[in-house]
Amino acid sequence: MPRTRTSSSTELLVELRRDDPLPLHSQLERELRDAIRSCRLPDDTVMPSSRALADQLGLSRGVVVEAYEQLVAEGYLSSRPGGATRVCAKATEPSPAAAAPPSPATPEVRIDFGYGRPDVTQFPRQVWLRSIRRVLNEAPSDRLSYLDNRGALELREALASYLNRVRGTAARADQIVICNGFAQALRLVAHVVRASGGTRLAVEDPGQLDAIDAATASGLTPVPIPVDESGIVIEALERSNADAVVLTPAHHFPTGAVLSAERRAALVAWANAHDSLVLEDDYDAEYRYDREPIGAVQGLAPERVIYAGSASKTLAPGLRLGWLIVPNRLVDAIATAKQATDRGSASLEQLAFADFLSRGEFDHHLRRMRPIYRARRDALLAALRRDLPALRPVGASAGLHVIAWLPSGVDEAAVLERAAAAGVRLYGLRQYHSARQKAPGGLLFGYGAVTEAEIDEGIRLVAEAMDGERPGAPQAQAGQSALRVEAAAG
Amino acid sequence: MPRTRTSSSTELLVELRRDDPLPLHSQLERELRDAIRSCRLPDDTVMPSSRALADQLGLSRGVVVEAYEQLVAEGYLSSRPGGATRVCAKATEPSPAAAAPPSPATPEVRIDFGYGRPDVTQFPRQVWLRSIRRVLNEAPSDRLSYLDNRGALELREALASYLNRVRGTAARADQIVICNGFAQALRLVAHVVRASGGTRLAVEDPGQLDAIDAATASGLTPVPIPVDESGIVIEALERSNADAVVLTPAHHFPTGAVLSAERRAALVAWANAHDSLVLEDDYDAEYRYDREPIGAVQGLAPERVIYAGSASKTLAPGLRLGWLIVPNRLVDAIATAKQATDRGSASLEQLAFADFLSRGEFDHHLRRMRPIYRARRDALLAALRRDLPALRPVGASAGLHVIAWLPSGVDEAAVLERAAAAGVRLYGLRQYHSARQKAPGGLLFGYGAVTEAEIDEGIRLVAEAMDGERPGAPQAQAGQSALRVEAAAG
Repeated sequence: MPRTRTSSSTELLVELRRDDPLPLHSQLERELRDAIRSCRLPDDTVMPSSRALADQLGLSRGVVVEAYEQLVAEGYLSSRPGGATRVCAKATEPSPAAAAPPSPATPEVRIDFGYGRPDVTQFPRQVWLRSIRRVLNEAPSDRLSYLDNRGALELREALASYLNRVRGTAARADQIVICNGFAQALRLVAHVVRASGGTRLAVEDPGQLDAIDAATASGLTPVPIPVDESGIVIEALERSNADAVVLTPAHHFPTGAVLSAERRAALVAWANAHDSLVLEDDYDAEYRYDREPIGAVQGLAPERVIYAGSASKTLAPGLRLGWLIVPNRLVDAIATAKQATDRGSASLEQLAFADFLSRGEFDHHLRRMRPIYRARRDALLAALRRDLPALRPVGASAGLHVIAWLPSGVDEAAVLERAAAAGVRLYGLRQYHSARQKAPGGLLFGYGAVTEAEIDEGIRLVAEAMDGERPGAPQAQAGQSALRVEAAAG
Repeated sequence: MPRTRTSSSTELLVELRRDDPLPLHSQLERELRDAIRSCRLPDDTVMPSSRALADQLGLSRGVVVEAYEQLVAEGYLSSRPGGATRVCAKATEPSPAAAAPPSPATPEVRIDFGYGRPDVTQFPRQVWLRSIRRVLNEAPSDRLSYLDNRGALELREALASYLNRVRGTAARADQIVICNGFAQALRLVAHVVRASGGTRLAVEDPGQLDAIDAATASGLTPVPIPVDESGIVIEALERSNADAVVLTPAHHFPTGAVLSAERRAALVAWANAHDSLVLEDDYDAEYRYDREPIGAVQGLAPERVIYAGSASKTLAPGLRLGWLIVPNRLVDAIATAKQATDRGSASLEQLAFADFLSRGEFDHHLRRMRPIYRARRDALLAALRRDLPALRPVGASAGLHVIAWLPSGVDEAAVLERAAAAGVRLYGLRQYHSARQKAPGGLLFGYGAVTEAEIDEGIRLVAEAMDGERPGAPQAQAGQSALRVEAAAG
């Protein structure tokens, strides 16, 4: 019985093609494996003899013997000397039905004011290709192997020169560690703070959520420190008993505040007095539209500050290129942590960026992008003034986003929901506060990846969606909503 | 007094060049910053008035005002309305003297039998460049932004097709997670095992040290499981009470054993019975020289096995490309852990590899490399037979390394030391055992990155260095050492 069943099953399942580039024995193995996995050949089925199957399929017997031996070695078949070859499917399990989790249904997004994405359609593909080509034509072979645990020397040298020139840092190539963007930088620093006995990581409030996640993942307690229009409040930091602080001095995320000169000095004094560490997240300082950007705090105190930057906002997040300038005493710890995590970042990308930087292509790209983003910022502010005059935009003329506080009494969640229903994705500010319920409502508009026309239309759609956003408000009031009426204080 | 000093100091330090692409005010800022950092302008020095400095330097006053304002904002200078501008160096600290840690002095290495490195001089640079060019010319812009947390779909599809065909896996694209090589894969899996309540990670003994490091870093206890000539000993695994096991079934590292068919079935039965997880490290299975490689265990039990592979041994470690095939129930956890760690791997590299794979270039590269590595393996075994007949090489004809046990009584450390003195770097096997002191001595010869001529010379140099390796042995015995004499049992 089993023999008969097997034979017919085998005939059914085995389909070999002479024009397939795969050798015949491999094709046979594949077909038999699939049949066993899918239970078309059930457990303990006796297989036909190699001679019989070879005859049936018009193959030389050697091909079948080879396939059987392979499948015995892999555990799909079993054979005993002198005995029959049998399916050994106890070990296998049926393949589950293909079950890609369905993506959750969301209303169509026509315009997305998402934050943190540059305009990747402007990525200088041909110039980048030239850099890659030079690297592939010229780089010594060892650059394709494992690199120094700090990253490619070429890139560290190019970055030291660029950052010292443009960001006022005090960096040497041997103090720089290359990593996969700021997310990884944060993890590495949190790990090293914890490993050296630290327990508390101060974070800006409001501030980026990544810092809180990284603290928690490393076993540190995140300590929220308030931020006002001059940046992080140093008096609160002094009372925090924190071992380190993560902050965004050049352009606070999300409020856009710039850390004042007094507070910069006080920050360094705090770090000196408490032997504490500062992680300076210089995430979008290349984009300042009204004046030269404020230089990095790292330049004031290179032994207290770890400086972090990335190419995610300036070139493309997909490059996954980030960098840290690390005080001498911590370079080994950070580089070792990076090494343990993933053995370093992709080397061709590092070398291409080194070439791109040292040829001035990065400066050129930034000079090209600044007026584009500035025009979008201007378009956004103009549209807000025109269509949503009750909003109060704040922050320096910089970066890739604007925030605006909502008038009191306007519910942030309701605004986001109405905008979404109109096809416009907006982002609220409450999520960035430690006390979300008590936090003032506000909106975050990223303009990095939307055109001026989209900005204009998006804000108009939001304004229309807001008309009558107060439940029960009479529609007859000329469609005026709380957001359409200019605030008395505005 | 200060005024005079300042003025002369300023004259000394400021060097502006009209042909410098940097604007004059930026040059002035840079020079003043450097002077303050280096204490050439000490703390509290009164700066010359903007008018005086402008006259002195032949600049318009606006340039100096702009530079002063910038440096005040950055915290290097302070000014009060109506008062003088002063150096504010309390916050700064003197830059430490450039202090690159000197690399430790080691004897010159002429020939390095290092393990784990492919021959990167054979990297197909022009073919890779073609793939990169196609990607840069054709990929949609969103591929340059943040990707799906599992990695680029193009690559996951190409890998599923390749691995199912060549490695006998049962993979769908939506089960694959792209990461930065095996080191990161190990960290991600250890993290997820721990996060789901696991406490014990079984590792092969002898085995790779990375698995022990990853276990420890994630808070898991590594549990060594012995390996014999049929691979990991499943009876010991059954007694281990482990939540997961990391192993190298196709070609055990370092001994070269292949997991037998019986043990493959027993491994899967163990995982099913204990609801445990298997991490299959398929690190060099593409290189099998005497027969087709054994298919992946993952194909037998796709809901129990996480399969891990990388391009580090087949193409180049510098690509930092690795992949995991993950059981359905764990895909989200692994992808989320990868996302939190570094927001994904470099996208251009992923897309280029997808192109390279789907055009058959990867198969072509492997077909080209196999005879090269096989010839090196043959050269190594021949040289060992000729010059060091007392060594006992073991393991399948596969991979990029050979191990050989030392005759009892020969000290591993002494052999490594003598070889190093002769300019040949060898690697011992004791380090891969949990009980290093009791472990048998042995040598690991990587042949991926040495030519046949280097292999021949390297082994000859080692043999010469070993002559008289037994302290006090009479030199007169025709230079015969314990390694030169063929073992009685060999």
